[in-house]
Amino acid sequence: MSIVVVGSVAYDTIETIHGSAQAALGGSASYFSLAARFFAPVSIVAVVGSDFKPSDKELLIERNIDVRGLERRDGKTMHWHGRYHEDMNKRDTISLALNVFAGFEPALLPDQRRADYLFLGNISPALQQHVLAQMSSPKVVAADTMNHWIESDRAALTKLLAGLDILTLNDEEARILSGEHNLVKAGRAVLKMGPKIALVKRGEYGVLQFSREGMFAVPAYPLEEVLDPTGAGDTFAGGVMGYLARHGRLSEGTLRSAVVYGSVMASFVVEKFALERLTTLTWEEVDRRYRAFIELTDCQHPRWTSQ
Amino acid sequence: MSIVVVGSVAYDTIETIHGSAQAALGGSASYFSLAARFFAPVSIVAVVGSDFKPSDKELLIERNIDVRGLERRDGKTMHWHGRYHEDMNKRDTISLALNVFAGFEPALLPDQRRADYLFLGNISPALQQHVLAQMSSPKVVAADTMNHWIESDRAALTKLLAGLDILTLNDEEARILSGEHNLVKAGRAVLKMGPKIALVKRGEYGVLQFSREGMFAVPAYPLEEVLDPTGAGDTFAGGVMGYLARHGRLSEGTLRSAVVYGSVMASFVVEKFALERLTTLTWEEVDRRYRAFIELTDCQHPRWTSQ
Repeated sequence: MSIVVVGSVAYDTIETIHGSAQAALGGSASYFSLAARFFAPVSIVAVVGSDFKPSDKELLIERNIDVRGLERRDGKTMHWHGRYHEDMNKRDTISLALNVFAGFEPALLPDQRRADYLFLGNISPALQQHVLAQMSSPKVVAADTMNHWIESDRAALTKLLAGLDILTLNDEEARILSGEHNLVKAGRAVLKMGPKIALVKRGEYGVLQFSREGMFAVPAYPLEEVLDPTGAGDTFAGGVMGYLARHGRLSEGTLRSAVVYGSVMASFVVEKFALERLTTLTWEEVDRRYRAFIELTDCQHPRWTSQ
Repeated sequence: MSIVVVGSVAYDTIETIHGSAQAALGGSASYFSLAARFFAPVSIVAVVGSDFKPSDKELLIERNIDVRGLERRDGKTMHWHGRYHEDMNKRDTISLALNVFAGFEPALLPDQRRADYLFLGNISPALQQHVLAQMSSPKVVAADTMNHWIESDRAALTKLLAGLDILTLNDEEARILSGEHNLVKAGRAVLKMGPKIALVKRGEYGVLQFSREGMFAVPAYPLEEVLDPTGAGDTFAGGVMGYLARHGRLSEGTLRSAVVYGSVMASFVVEKFALERLTTLTWEEVDRRYRAFIELTDCQHPRWTSQ
């Protein structure tokens, strides 16, 4: 079943202690779709400026991402400039030029409105709601949000939450949204706000999933080198939604596997700058790391218990 | 098979945002033995002062902990006073009075020297070596260390590491010991220093195990309330060594289960101040949380995959 993603397509300038990338293709919709396309057809809804490079559009098309909904407007493409600390869990935004993204009014194509899987990338909750209202009867609606929206537009976010199957957010955002410092209490409080599932992203420490069945915890895949964490959250969401769309149902079992695949996808993207790693990634590599991930976390596999 | 633990028995004054404990029984040997005794017989080697309360000795004896090696000397018992930040991953030592512990020269009883399992709590590496030299032919030797010894007595620590099966340390200590910031590189570098296994403790984020078989990652059991993290590392070690001693072999399979049981034991101790929770804990509670822990981390259980 196909997935529609609404979010940003941007140019990112990224600095980490390992180097930098200048005006590299980025944005939540780019990361999400480049991960999700391994599992199911993906269709983008986003806006870019007249400076958007034909080669970047081609990059998406070549990977079977439907870009009919990638609107081109006069002006410049959104540009984000960020700098990571030595501790890559922390970063500063040096500048953010919304450019054409400031006037973004997502309008879905008729076939996009009939999609079963919808991911609302991190845009204003009012815009997310505007998109959700255009859908006929989606099976699974997931959204990402951030501290900025929680603090500046809680009313719109509260309304949105009531219509969500899945909310993705990081641990700090879960604390701000719920008012609970303890993460278990925070996750449970978020569920009471509407979403059936809350996926709390903890960066290098993995993901904590809250659902009506209880909790599920996965570590992040331990890597020898992390060059650039940009887009890890959207890449994770792409893996999760991709897996769910491929398997066509939202049970605790598929959800847990989806979270592992999301973690696997995120473990790749941080290995190189911007989204470069996702453009060269093969299904064989995904499959190999999925098996390594299972081995990493499994204490009951016959391989170990027969010893 | 029985376990010998060498470490501190102390009185701790602990302050957290949730309250405080005054001169409560603590010390690495106390936490370790109160966890390990659920799995195998434990024998303590430690020193206390003349102020050591008979009721505290009784507390250990009643829980089948062998205290023949608990030496009593004129003077006061070691006293530690610590204060945790709101973020309980951080704490300050307000004061540390070694008292009789300053003259501690552990001498093992003849039957202790023949034990198969030895845990060297966080004392100076020279003292740890002094104890190890008294053992006839232990099957598994584990030790804990800390940044203080890594920085002040690296030569003695390096010598000790060569004779260890298991080293437990936290993530920051793994970085200092190895000189590697990346935790995967740090863990692998620690293995090259001698220990067959390195268990890197990450507090609320769980444990990363390094062995010749590769890596194993477990999250910490998510709790609604953490009152006092004191002793969590030693309690974890008690669960690990207890499980290994009970099963009598050090394979990757038993090790992984041991790390889960260690995590389970640690998840209890932080629920109350000092070691109180370990004194009331029952095997039924341990077993129930072990099963909850497996459910928390398992993405392949039939309960989920049959859905």
